[in-house]
Amino acid sequence: MQATVKWQGKMAFIGEDEAGHSVKMDAPPAVGGENDGFRPKQLLLDSLAGCTSMDVISILKKMKITPDSFMVEVEAGESEEHPKVFTDFHIKYLVSGDVPEAKLNKAINLSQERYCGVTAMFRSFAPITHEVIYTD
Amino acid sequence: MQATVKWQGKMAFIGEDEAGHSVKMDAPPAVGGENDGFRPKQLLLDSLAGCTSMDVISILKKMKITPDSFMVEVEAGESEEHPKVFTDFHIKYLVSGDVPEAKLNKAINLSQERYCGVTAMFRSFAPITHEVIYTD
Repeated sequence: MQATVKWQGKMAFIGEDEAGHSVKMDAPPAVGGENDGFRPKQLLLDSLAGCTSMDVISILKKMKITPDSFMVEVEAGESEEHPKVFTDFHIKYLVSGDVPEAKLNKAINLSQERYCGVTAMFRSFAPITHEVIYTD
Repeated sequence: MQATVKWQGKMAFIGEDEAGHSVKMDAPPAVGGENDGFRPKQLLLDSLAGCTSMDVISILKKMKITPDSFMVEVEAGESEEHPKVFTDFHIKYLVSGDVPEAKLNKAINLSQERYCGVTAMFRSFAPITHEVIYTD
């Protein structure tokens, strides 16, 4: 897998994948940027949330279950010293609709323990916890 | 730091950061998606490239050096088995303009060894190599 990031002047960058999807990255004004895009480290949290979301939706689909809504929030703690790294992750699965809790937990556990590559990689440097919240 | 990912139906998701920047994620058709966005794992590579790019541009700026162009490519190997994880990363720094090689290498080494949190995290599960290519 491959990615390309091109400098756009100041602290602005365009990231691309092989298919040509693009994402803007930028820094805060304190370090010369204009906040006109994701901070690179922020994309790690969206990636973690997206990876496990896709697993869970895919597994629920195989169980013939379709949530009314499905959202994942990830919160991460950061170290104070350089290099600034994430010290822990907490994933909240926010679900509404007719989704039996046992089946949802099964789908989440399959993602967290077997399928989600991002979880597997991140767990090698920081603990990952999760909880389920029904938003009905 | 926090991220939110919302399901959009099928395998499409919108990822956001706290400032409201958004990125689309999707899966390939083989697993029910439409390829209309980044694969979550792909964002990790853009994040790695963006993180070290920002460091290098920022350090070069302190050295009063402005490249004509600056681009970073990241290639990663992946495991075959679930959970599919990255097994190695190779970073190419593609630079043009009046950028002395010794200073560029110093900036890159400062990023790779001291400042880039994404590098520091990823190195805990896979080796990271890099090279410099002048594109003049």
